[in-house]
Amino acid sequence: MSKILFQHINKFVSMEDQVLEEVISYFTHRDVEKKELLMRSGDTILHDYFVLSGCLQMYFIDKDGTEHTVQFALQGWWLADYLALQAKKPTEFFIQAVKKTAILSISATKRVELFETFPKLESYFRTVYQIAYGSYQTRMKYILSYSKEEIYFKFRDEFPEFVNSIPQYLIANYLGLSPEYISKLRRKHIS
Amino acid sequence: MSKILFQHINKFVSMEDQVLEEVISYFTHRDVEKKELLMRSGDTILHDYFVLSGCLQMYFIDKDGTEHTVQFALQGWWLADYLALQAKKPTEFFIQAVKKTAILSISATKRVELFETFPKLESYFRTVYQIAYGSYQTRMKYILSYSKEEIYFKFRDEFPEFVNSIPQYLIANYLGLSPEYISKLRRKHIS
Repeated sequence: MSKILFQHINKFVSMEDQVLEEVISYFTHRDVEKKELLMRSGDTILHDYFVLSGCLQMYFIDKDGTEHTVQFALQGWWLADYLALQAKKPTEFFIQAVKKTAILSISATKRVELFETFPKLESYFRTVYQIAYGSYQTRMKYILSYSKEEIYFKFRDEFPEFVNSIPQYLIANYLGLSPEYISKLRRKHIS
Repeated sequence: MSKILFQHINKFVSMEDQVLEEVISYFTHRDVEKKELLMRSGDTILHDYFVLSGCLQMYFIDKDGTEHTVQFALQGWWLADYLALQAKKPTEFFIQAVKKTAILSISATKRVELFETFPKLESYFRTVYQIAYGSYQTRMKYILSYSKEEIYFKFRDEFPEFVNSIPQYLIANYLGLSPEYISKLRRKHIS
């Protein structure tokens, strides 16, 4: 399963298999059950998570107790609260498994050691975070230029793996739509 | 002026002044006039910009011809279309100076050379992009949990340097409010 991380690293930097085996020793492999929480609001010991299979969801709970999805991570994606991870501050987010999910997890402390031992990984993570940052710029463009209905259809057409692997009520939550509204959109589109 | 970049780099990685002088030689210093465009939708030769003084605005124009602000960059901030920069694809965004602005600019090609020559800068940019990525996660939390009115006041309280240095009509555009509505909010708040 760690081959998925090897392949992802080698997409951006070139590292020998033997070195990658050492890299992997810094991570903990975890199998997470559906709905199991990896991170809770208030947590101070934070991790960066790499998805080997399944799907993670990052969300927060607003002052009225409503859950809002900020981000998903499918196979080959990294997920963490990156400001809190950097500033070593308590997080205000939750991360949970949407379904049975396998991950590699690294603590903030181990991650510092990892960078010191394998400086080449700075380049890998620089690229990963640059792409993630750029994706948010593009996401803002979507939010500002399309109606929620248009965003749903664009999302479905451009990221079919999301729509196929994430329950409809969570996609609705992510897009700020009610599940009923998405059902209506789907029916409208099929007919 | 390049001292501002030296200081910013040394916040995250330690580099000698002599090395930093060499680093600077990869950049072009530019003084940009108010409203001058640094990047246009369709451009393929892209740059990463570091603000020495003044302010940059990144925006796009939607299908109805309306301008939408995606992001600002004040002194000590980096700005680019990071997906297009990475994928070497044409950008769909514009970057312009909000006021008279001094920047350091580096082309995508020079940037690759920079990383090859000074691998330590991978660590600097990994941190910069990680923080920028994390800021977008937090921004999504704001968008999803507060009304536009609440966001305006939070924005004003948490980032007073923005409200003081960016014209009101651009802050309105960034927050998706009309300038008239912001004037009304300000009056309401003062009275």
